Amino acid sequence: MGDEVRVGKEALTQFCVTVFEKLGVPKGDAGTATDVLVAADLRDKGSHGVARLPRYVDGLKKGIMVPKDQSHVVKETATTGLIDGGKSLGQVVGKRGMELALQKAKASGVGFVAVRNSNHYGIAGYYTLMAVERGCIGFSVTNTAPLVVATFGRDAVLGTNPVSLAIPAEGEPFLLDMATSVVPRGKLEVFDRQGKPMPMGWAVNARGQGTANAREVLDNLKARTGGGILPLGGEGEEYSGHKGYGLALAVELLCAAVSGASFSLKTYGEERADIGHFFGAIDVSSFRPLADVKKDARGILDQIRGGPKAEGHDRIYVHGEKGFAAERERLKNGIPLGPKVVENLKKVGTELGVPWVA
Amino acid sequence: MGDEVRVGKEALTQFCVTVFEKLGVPKGDAGTATDVLVAADLRDKGSHGVARLPRYVDGLKKGIMVPKDQSHVVKETATTGLIDGGKSLGQVVGKRGMELALQKAKASGVGFVAVRNSNHYGIAGYYTLMAVERGCIGFSVTNTAPLVVATFGRDAVLGTNPVSLAIPAEGEPFLLDMATSVVPRGKLEVFDRQGKPMPMGWAVNARGQGTANAREVLDNLKARTGGGILPLGGEGEEYSGHKGYGLALAVELLCAAVSGASFSLKTYGEERADIGHFFGAIDVSSFRPLADVKKDARGILDQIRGGPKAEGHDRIYVHGEKGFAAERERLKNGIPLGPKVVENLKKVGTELGVPWVA
Repeated sequence: MGDEVRVGKEALTQFCVTVFEKLGVPKGDAGTATDVLVAADLRDKGSHGVARLPRYVDGLKKGIMVPKDQSHVVKETATTGLIDGGKSLGQVVGKRGMELALQKAKASGVGFVAVRNSNHYGIAGYYTLMAVERGCIGFSVTNTAPLVVATFGRDAVLGTNPVSLAIPAEGEPFLLDMATSVVPRGKLEVFDRQGKPMPMGWAVNARGQGTANAREVLDNLKARTGGGILPLGGEGEEYSGHKGYGLALAVELLCAAVSGASFSLKTYGEERADIGHFFGAIDVSSFRPLADVKKDARGILDQIRGGPKAEGHDRIYVHGEKGFAAERERLKNGIPLGPKVVENLKKVGTELGVPWVA
Repeated sequence: MGDEVRVGKEALTQFCVTVFEKLGVPKGDAGTATDVLVAADLRDKGSHGVARLPRYVDGLKKGIMVPKDQSHVVKETATTGLIDGGKSLGQVVGKRGMELALQKAKASGVGFVAVRNSNHYGIAGYYTLMAVERGCIGFSVTNTAPLVVATFGRDAVLGTNPVSLAIPAEGEPFLLDMATSVVPRGKLEVFDRQGKPMPMGWAVNARGQGTANAREVLDNLKARTGGGILPLGGEGEEYSGHKGYGLALAVELLCAAVSGASFSLKTYGEERADIGHFFGAIDVSSFRPLADVKKDARGILDQIRGGPKAEGHDRIYVHGEKGFAAERERLKNGIPLGPKVVENLKKVGTELGVPWVA
């Protein structure tokens, strides 16, 4: 299948935008959806990048997603909003959601927006970074499809339910963007492809017991026959798996109970995904001058980074740092895409009459 | 030293209130501080309960805490507030902080309050439950003293930094209240007392390497000679320790950078603790009718609880449930206190001329 290739951001963007346009997505929204995907690739979160384009193509073809933005604000106050995504592209709805939260935060200090009836919105951190760029603390969570078991449960009932929180800081912002599961499904897929046992404590089998067999877990998840990925903290309570479970459950309640969306176990019905999101923006200058907060944030981050390292390690990272470094490198040298991803993108392009990048 | 005893809530409350009053704390504030401590004991969070009374006595005697509430609002908008705690009791400042957030949430939909120059505020979940009782989503975080190492670091630079999030639900609310460390220090103390090796993945030694020796870690933490408790997710990145580290760091930034408080590494100076808190309240009815959200929340929680159990387990819990059950039982049968706790409380009482409960 060939080796990894490097593709420039502009060329990759153009390809994805054209694919979305061929499926009836207006240019602006095609640009938004693409921007969220490409941002993931730039920041080394390839599992949420253009590799997912075929799934969006599939969703648009099947009508789970509609090409023209049907989202609308159901209810709003000076500080809050409720949006029905109208089955539109999750990135388009997500961006609208955070923009509404930001508009309220810039006018009233704080804005929170709940969203229902949306689709997969890409990386949670895309939206929180929008907030940081406007001098706000950003909060973004979404539910997903059922992949994660509850502590002491044996069926996947929760999503990997990412939490992103971004906070302005001098230099680069703090950007936490984490699934609340111990690992993402992609990590299981890596061990499956390599045919190696995965670490115990990542997943359970159909009886709810720890397993190192990635293939079995992936098969079970696909067939929904029980078992799944463990929450952050692992199996049972010894390493506080109930905390990761609690974070995942909190995300379900914020995304589904507040907005009226489905919770992860019930998402992705035949006609719609009904994914829920929850966005928050808090204007930092409501508390103290933005420059002061950013300076103090950097001071804390620098002290953490500069602390003594564990034996065998020469660097302590803060959150977002690795992704921003990857972004700088990839903007210069192009985005690395594996042969399988390229093959799938070419296939999509061929079907829709969109030539693959030069 | 005798066995565990059961003490009624009223008698225990009276004892603690009188102790605080003897140290110059006005009756109302003595009641608030006591209520937060006793709430922890009722909900089976004894590590944050009356067992800590001697530390507050010590703090008041040393002047790290002042008996009369000196907290004041430094800045506020319709949706936000910044409070200087004035070295007052953390519970008094904390309650004031959440009350201010709630006042704003009930008037404007959302309220967020940052606090600096405070003290240990007890259980984070006390404040989020205040929010739930007013139909709001509650958010409460605090930094603490340095006990937790950063991923790839070897010194304790972060606090155990709890996160509480509470969401209204029919029946009992969802109440997450979790340290962002893999375990609290109290768990290490249990293994130390029993002279048993603790599980690998809880803590690192002074070189930043995994250890099962609880005594060594506790000694190192006390002497600040390196090592400490690991963040949720454990050592390195294999089980996503960087996620727990990220949550702990987010708490530092929210509590210290936003308000201008010290971060955990720098708290507890000779003259003041300078602890920071961050509170949020979001009025659920801004999005949808409270009854609808509570009904949907219960529906999700019931489906999770009712799901198939892992082999060897017969129950799936949701967060808050165990604590509320303990509270009901303890209100009826009294609060269990170990012999060491009773001994320490009696000692405090003797010193201050407050008779121990009958």
